[in-house]
Amino acid sequence: MNDQLYTLKEAMIFSQRVAQLSKALWKSIEKDWQQWIKPYDLNINEHHILWISFHLKGASISDVAKFGVMHVSTAFNFSKKLEERGLLSFSKRDHDKRNTYIELTEAGRELLIDMMANYHKTPHSIVEGALPLKELYGRFPDFMEVMAVLRNIYGEDFIQIFEKSFHNIETHFDDEGQFTDNRQSP
Amino acid sequence: MNDQLYTLKEAMIFSQRVAQLSKALWKSIEKDWQQWIKPYDLNINEHHILWISFHLKGASISDVAKFGVMHVSTAFNFSKKLEERGLLSFSKRDHDKRNTYIELTEAGRELLIDMMANYHKTPHSIVEGALPLKELYGRFPDFMEVMAVLRNIYGEDFIQIFEKSFHNIETHFDDEGQFTDNRQSP
Repeated sequence: MNDQLYTLKEAMIFSQRVAQLSKALWKSIEKDWQQWIKPYDLNINEHHILWISFHLKGASISDVAKFGVMHVSTAFNFSKKLEERGLLSFSKRDHDKRNTYIELTEAGRELLIDMMANYHKTPHSIVEGALPLKELYGRFPDFMEVMAVLRNIYGEDFIQIFEKSFHNIETHFDDEGQFTDNRQSP
Repeated sequence: MNDQLYTLKEAMIFSQRVAQLSKALWKSIEKDWQQWIKPYDLNINEHHILWISFHLKGASISDVAKFGVMHVSTAFNFSKKLEERGLLSFSKRDHDKRNTYIELTEAGRELLIDMMANYHKTPHSIVEGALPLKELYGRFPDFMEVMAVLRNIYGEDFIQIFEKSFHNIETHFDDEGQFTDNRQSP
């Protein structure tokens, strides 16, 4: 069926093209992400778990694995380490005894807010790289095509969690990136 | 100066958004890439080095590192392993004694062509994920915004090597992904 929609050559060129560009994009992001979190003695997976728990106001380990694009065992093991450091707490929920939920402790929440406030103390090449587009179009690019492809690969709930987390930043941080609503969730 | 162009919050939301999406995109690509090359006992860096040498018709180690987005020492060490397996050969060039160049051996070239011919025997989620866009617009998406950002981050020569490698596939493979021009380079 697919043979009628595209030639094998077309598909090969397209997917190898995306492979090259996504590797280059991710390596640049990864480098900046590591520099940002280095002072906090966290690796990317650990920070990603904290970030997801913060924005979802508590999440199941399987949500974390899905949204963080990591194995469930990776999500679980790193969450355990974060619990030992007092940044996360584990719980079961009455309506859902099968899943383990994690929630930020007050210390974890403060750490995250502090990290957000220090976000711009390390370089983020992606921001510099997108500036000409921002000047041209008046806003940063939204990569709608990439989002459409990810929606098909990871499903609608992945995109919803994605949007929810950014809505959260939109609501709870001021223009300087400072957390403004200290007494409400998250 | 940058403060006038964007708020810190805008920049933070944009770059964390790209971080999430590029991680998800890369993890999906990486998984499919690994499945494709698994039967050939290569890791992604090794395959990437062969792929670059193939398309550039020989390349310096620093070209490989730059275009493959890996450390020079990584590029060198994996190239050495590929040389030991008889897939690559090392040389110096008369006009440029300082750099080490690598070139595919006949065995390396045949391996690459064989891998291309078997490309569609493993799944590539990115192709499936992009099909609705292909149906809608009549072609696979070109992610122009991502390319524009990468051009700013990695420079014009990165993009030129990028385009050259795809021009190469365009020219030397038929619609079924078979190599058609066996006696000419590459």
